[in-house]
Amino acid sequence: MTRKKISIIGAGFTGATAAFIAAQKELGDIVLVDIPQSENPTKGKALDMAESAPILGFDSKVIGTSQYEDTKNSDIVIITAGIARKPGMSRDDLVQTNQKVMKSVTEEIVKYSPNTVILVLTNPVDAMTYTVYKASGLPKEKVIGQSGVLDTARFRTFVAEALNLSVKDVTGFVLGGHGDTMVPLIRYSAAGGVPLDTLLTHEQIQEIVDRTRTGGAEIVNLLGNGSAYYAPGAALIEMAEAILKDQKRVLPSIAYLEGEYGYEGIYLGVPTVLGANGIEKIIELELTNEEKKLLDESADSVKAVKDILN
Amino acid sequence: MTRKKISIIGAGFTGATAAFIAAQKELGDIVLVDIPQSENPTKGKALDMAESAPILGFDSKVIGTSQYEDTKNSDIVIITAGIARKPGMSRDDLVQTNQKVMKSVTEEIVKYSPNTVILVLTNPVDAMTYTVYKASGLPKEKVIGQSGVLDTARFRTFVAEALNLSVKDVTGFVLGGHGDTMVPLIRYSAAGGVPLDTLLTHEQIQEIVDRTRTGGAEIVNLLGNGSAYYAPGAALIEMAEAILKDQKRVLPSIAYLEGEYGYEGIYLGVPTVLGANGIEKIIELELTNEEKKLLDESADSVKAVKDILN
Amino acid sequence: MTRKKISIIGAGFTGATAAFIAAQKELGDIVLVDIPQSENPTKGKALDMAESAPILGFDSKVIGTSQYEDTKNSDIVIITAGIARKPGMSRDDLVQTNQKVMKSVTEEIVKYSPNTVILVLTNPVDAMTYTVYKASGLPKEKVIGQSGVLDTARFRTFVAEALNLSVKDVTGFVLGGHGDTMVPLIRYSAAGGVPLDTLLTHEQIQEIVDRTRTGGAEIVNLLGNGSAYYAPGAALIEMAEAILKDQKRVLPSIAYLEGEYGYEGIYLGVPTVLGANGIEKIIELELTNEEKKLLDESADSVKAVKDILN
Amino acid sequence: MTRKKISIIGAGFTGATAAFIAAQKELGDIVLVDIPQSENPTKGKALDMAESAPILGFDSKVIGTSQYEDTKNSDIVIITAGIARKPGMSRDDLVQTNQKVMKSVTEEIVKYSPNTVILVLTNPVDAMTYTVYKASGLPKEKVIGQSGVLDTARFRTFVAEALNLSVKDVTGFVLGGHGDTMVPLIRYSAAGGVPLDTLLTHEQIQEIVDRTRTGGAEIVNLLGNGSAYYAPGAALIEMAEAILKDQKRVLPSIAYLEGEYGYEGIYLGVPTVLGANGIEKIIELELTNEEKKLLDESADSVKAVKDILN
Repeated sequence: MTRKKISIIGAGFTGATAAFIAAQKELGDIVLVDIPQSENPTKGKALDMAESAPILGFDSKVIGTSQYEDTKNSDIVIITAGIARKPGMSRDDLVQTNQKVMKSVTEEIVKYSPNTVILVLTNPVDAMTYTVYKASGLPKEKVIGQSGVLDTARFRTFVAEALNLSVKDVTGFVLGGHGDTMVPLIRYSAAGGVPLDTLLTHEQIQEIVDRTRTGGAEIVNLLGNGSAYYAPGAALIEMAEAILKDQKRVLPSIAYLEGEYGYEGIYLGVPTVLGANGIEKIIELELTNEEKKLLDESADSVKAVKDILN
Repeated sequence: MTRKKISIIGAGFTGATAAFIAAQKELGDIVLVDIPQSENPTKGKALDMAESAPILGFDSKVIGTSQYEDTKNSDIVIITAGIARKPGMSRDDLVQTNQKVMKSVTEEIVKYSPNTVILVLTNPVDAMTYTVYKASGLPKEKVIGQSGVLDTARFRTFVAEALNLSVKDVTGFVLGGHGDTMVPLIRYSAAGGVPLDTLLTHEQIQEIVDRTRTGGAEIVNLLGNGSAYYAPGAALIEMAEAILKDQKRVLPSIAYLEGEYGYEGIYLGVPTVLGANGIEKIIELELTNEEKKLLDESADSVKAVKDILN
Repeated sequence: MTRKKISIIGAGFTGATAAFIAAQKELGDIVLVDIPQSENPTKGKALDMAESAPILGFDSKVIGTSQYEDTKNSDIVIITAGIARKPGMSRDDLVQTNQKVMKSVTEEIVKYSPNTVILVLTNPVDAMTYTVYKASGLPKEKVIGQSGVLDTARFRTFVAEALNLSVKDVTGFVLGGHGDTMVPLIRYSAAGGVPLDTLLTHEQIQEIVDRTRTGGAEIVNLLGNGSAYYAPGAALIEMAEAILKDQKRVLPSIAYLEGEYGYEGIYLGVPTVLGANGIEKIIELELTNEEKKLLDESADSVKAVKDILN
Repeated sequence: MTRKKISIIGAGFTGATAAFIAAQKELGDIVLVDIPQSENPTKGKALDMAESAPILGFDSKVIGTSQYEDTKNSDIVIITAGIARKPGMSRDDLVQTNQKVMKSVTEEIVKYSPNTVILVLTNPVDAMTYTVYKASGLPKEKVIGQSGVLDTARFRTFVAEALNLSVKDVTGFVLGGHGDTMVPLIRYSAAGGVPLDTLLTHEQIQEIVDRTRTGGAEIVNLLGNGSAYYAPGAALIEMAEAILKDQKRVLPSIAYLEGEYGYEGIYLGVPTVLGANGIEKIIELELTNEEKKLLDESADSVKAVKDILN
């Protein structure tokens, strides 16, 4: 009956926000890890969070560190580390830089937690999850990428706003890649069980889908300096909670496919069941021709990035 | 910025459980009302609940009383009072006895809270909600019956169990009357957005529907003495919370129909939006012929009971 | 990363309420156990609770059973079984009847969960906790009685009411036996840190202490038939949560003393630290002569009951 | 039964964190306000937060704006705006710059919410709360500064860590100014009701007090660039929740004194009762000579800053 341990690699805004949400939920003790040059700010954020515990009423310990030894025996590790694409940077540069980060980070993670589950947020997330999978030596079900929880959260937010309904009752459904290449399945999206196409016009739905696709960019443009962290942090912790509490949640994950949906050897966004063992099941759906075509494009895009990997 | 006030008429197990859930959620102060002969037990339950507040960390006041004056200026009133059908009792006797209870209770409620919203649980709930509506003089959107939230909760429980999935991700959808006469819309029911008929066989679904229809009786038979109260209490408070917090939840309600779905002047279970004003919208769906036929039967059954009312 | 398991022996109101609170907190899966003759009602309560899960949003499984095999590998077991003292029943009869129940229940518990922690509520709680300790073969820190959490909750409720303050900010402190023989330490009780004797008169405090001492009887008298269950259920789960989440809570427990406070070989209410190992520490306080005298009386009373045990 | 409205002036880290905590608690709808030059980032943060709502399950609306009109009819307004002291800046410059900010902000606030409650975080908080009070025309009980909730949270964190106990059970108590000039009342601080001086040595306590005094600077030094926001944000929302829910919490506030504790016409940190009307009561304690001397020094320091105000 020891406490659960959640390590978060990368103590930027997303990592810190994920830590704060996990701590508030008392999911376990939190280790926030960043590079040695950022050790003090990392310790500062962790201490500040810890000082909110008596007010918010949680008993999770939160520490900041640059030492991977502190992540020893983590139940789950979340990777938010890596760089964001900057103006003038080629996609290949981004991919190869983050690939290096993933490799070195993963080696350290599995050195201290050889049986952990790893959640990956770093972009391009499909390729980065693949990199972590290969570098970790972990079984495929224990290395999982995040994208669909965030994409559907944005979709649900926009639908709830358009209809002036509670976000609690709006559901969404996406397949495929993150953002641009996501494949929304509107026929599986509803408000209180009522299919969206009975509540919104085709144009309204299309507008919401388009806004969802570019949801990350919308925040980037507004912030001017940096990218989203509240909703991404929440998405990561929803997945982590499902695993830590063995909840058997049905959530979209970036999962390693070996034949599912007709793809082999790539990480792609699909509906999954998340429980104590990570991805406990990949749910296969029959797709319409149009949906399958869109998913093929998404898979092609994933493969193109994968080819850049060393 | 005064506290919200929730009065619950009938301090039996369901009323008390609803009070306990509302108090834990800090929705407001709770007044638990029962008849003078039960005043002491009502006070005892309220005091016992109040004594759990320091442990569970809620600041809701809970009082027990037999004086309607104590319900003054309630934001919402929940009626759980009335008798249950006993062996040998005819349906007409049940209806007429509870009708009397509803009338006298409603008079007292509106005397002290002339603008409140009233939620009705007492069976037969369609007829009893109608009775309260007529006796209250309140606008139709402020007198609401509970049945679909409970029915779908049971349905979702059985589906989640059959699939070993989180209840959080299973949705259900019902129309029409409570229990026997409910009309389940399986095509609007899903697990994580995935339609149920891709996850369960027709036989499994039918079995779950049948079990849901008789879900109340299943508990009655198991308990041997009394009927369900945990799930009914939770259902009532979900509806109350939607109203008290103006959440615009999409929940099934027993609503007064004036032409919707082709019915006039009866209370029937339909999808609604619940907010500060009570039922803020009735959502109309296109039904298949089969669904419409089942809903007609449900409406006929409701009308048959309504005809018994004095 | 398996789910936690909490077994509750005795599915009466207190056991069921404890189960409901634990489920809502998602502390783990719940097994509610009662005697074979009550198996159906036990199943009925468990099912009803399970059916509230989709509404209240918890993923704890709740089952009812009469088979101890279902409690296998429990992380914690809570005993609420036993009879209440009835009019005309001598104390000795009560003690000896419940002693038999404790013995047989404990044998079954440790047969299936040889390393569990056991919480005891059954009265007279000091003697019953001792009985369970002896019958279980478990180390003393893993067999714990509940009384002080409930007594202080009542005390805090009455203080908060008298001062019209939030229960969240009122603290209380008791030593010794349950109810009549509890020893309140007013100098360690406060509202928002402000000592009670600066906020209330001596008479008011004495009145609150007296009411707390007889707090159980007050509820019994009001209910007319049965005893308190909301606050006792909440008290049990606060202790269980501290242990399951390794929270290092400072809570009063009925602990086995081997020299602490000058007593040897009895279970008595003292301040403790509750964590993953059960009672991780007994906090010893210097007492005034008057307090020590009252505690001696409490200990004498405990010993007198212990002497009745076979 | 309209939704509560909480406006937060200043959308920096503290303002945004406070908004996020309030939204998660579903305290009401949130309006995050910053200057026109920061309108886009403010909208970005608000939108990002709103997009976490479907995941975290809250129905609070969150909007970002630079238009005070959007704050209309706020139930509570929290001011986090203002500049932080920079290297080389004199205290007088800081005070006078922030005073101007407070004045202009307050005028806008009361223009749209003439009966609101205002919470002030901006430093030097005693003087800034005074400035807001004077500029607002609101009664003194409705203009409140935050400092003691944060100071005690830090104190409690350090004590809980030193003793390896739950933060839930450690209480602290401070009077006077924020940080350096705070007056800790150790005799009113406890762990599970047990006075700290029986659990920690005098040296340990002194070390914790010193660390608390410089708790803000500790975070500033670690972060390197910026100051604490998690614990300050949580502190603000604890006070706001007490007021919005009329909880009668006993919390330390910076309150306007008219004779209490022997001071006249200054804002100083004292124990208060927070409810729907703001500060509903100032609790007066007898102080030891030493405590009174420290509090006098704290008051002198507050007066010295007040004298700088225009």
